[in-house]
Amino acid sequence: MQSLQEKASEWSGVATSDAFAIDETNLFQSLGGNQPFIDLSTNFYTRVYDDEEEWFRSIFANSKKEEAIQNQYEFFIQRMGGPPLFSQRRGHPALIARHRPFPVTREAAERWLHHMQLALDTTSTIDPDSKIKMMNFFKHTAYFLVAGNEMTRQAQAVVCKHAASKPPS
Amino acid sequence: MQSLQEKASEWSGVATSDAFAIDETNLFQSLGGNQPFIDLSTNFYTRVYDDEEEWFRSIFANSKKEEAIQNQYEFFIQRMGGPPLFSQRRGHPALIARHRPFPVTREAAERWLHHMQLALDTTSTIDPDSKIKMMNFFKHTAYFLVAGNEMTRQAQAVVCKHAASKPPS
Repeated sequence: MQSLQEKASEWSGVATSDAFAIDETNLFQSLGGNQPFIDLSTNFYTRVYDDEEEWFRSIFANSKKEEAIQNQYEFFIQRMGGPPLFSQRRGHPALIARHRPFPVTREAAERWLHHMQLALDTTSTIDPDSKIKMMNFFKHTAYFLVAGNEMTRQAQAVVCKHAASKPPS
Repeated sequence: MQSLQEKASEWSGVATSDAFAIDETNLFQSLGGNQPFIDLSTNFYTRVYDDEEEWFRSIFANSKKEEAIQNQYEFFIQRMGGPPLFSQRRGHPALIARHRPFPVTREAAERWLHHMQLALDTTSTIDPDSKIKMMNFFKHTAYFLVAGNEMTRQAQAVVCKHAASKPPS
């Protein structure tokens, strides 16, 4: 059985070593602190909350845009070498579990990545080489979450089937 | 509704700021690299796989001891300031999702912490101050996973109930 990591690499087309090239340098330091990450997440969610594709926009309908922005940039800052802002406020990233309420399908991953590429393109506080590294990380992570989403739903179906086959207590 | 983080703090008795005091310094550097983490995880799983409590030992019965040790120390090294060994091999930690197959109850968390405290006590390559920081992180994380376990099982019960109430397709 393929691992989450293997599925992420195959589906995204990004090798693990490229996905985690973000760790070769400290991006938080080289980009100069919080602001580039705040810029990126603001650009990203401004696009997402205004998406013409209703099916994608509706995934975020129960979250406030400001909170979505903060959750994202705090995670990025923590993951890319900065202070652990996300964990101090919300605990471990627990990426698969926190995405559990959302339909993280391949189509949703592709739409997410489409907006993220355009958000990166318009973030002038991030240099071109860092953009490539970050986009590889995002692609791999998006499909890691698609794989995680499939894993939890399959496990759930098995549990439901098992529960349904038991006599009522 | 209490967040995962709030539950973790209340149930473990460890404030978030104490749990993430591991980030105030780079423990990987101050402890001098991989070896203290390898020592700790080896001591820990040697105890676990030999636990007199069969209910707890059986949780780990489907995993090889050597793999359990490596998974753990690679995560600890990555989380405590060292190279991202875990992600390079297995992807994001995704702590809650990866613990999903296991019954992470309060009793299991307490037994895990009992063995971890004794494993720390016998790891001479870790200084006393670092041991306190690490144990606070472990306590908080153990109950974060208990909270995550309850969250996924409750969500699952709702989905199963919903599925059972639908007419068969």
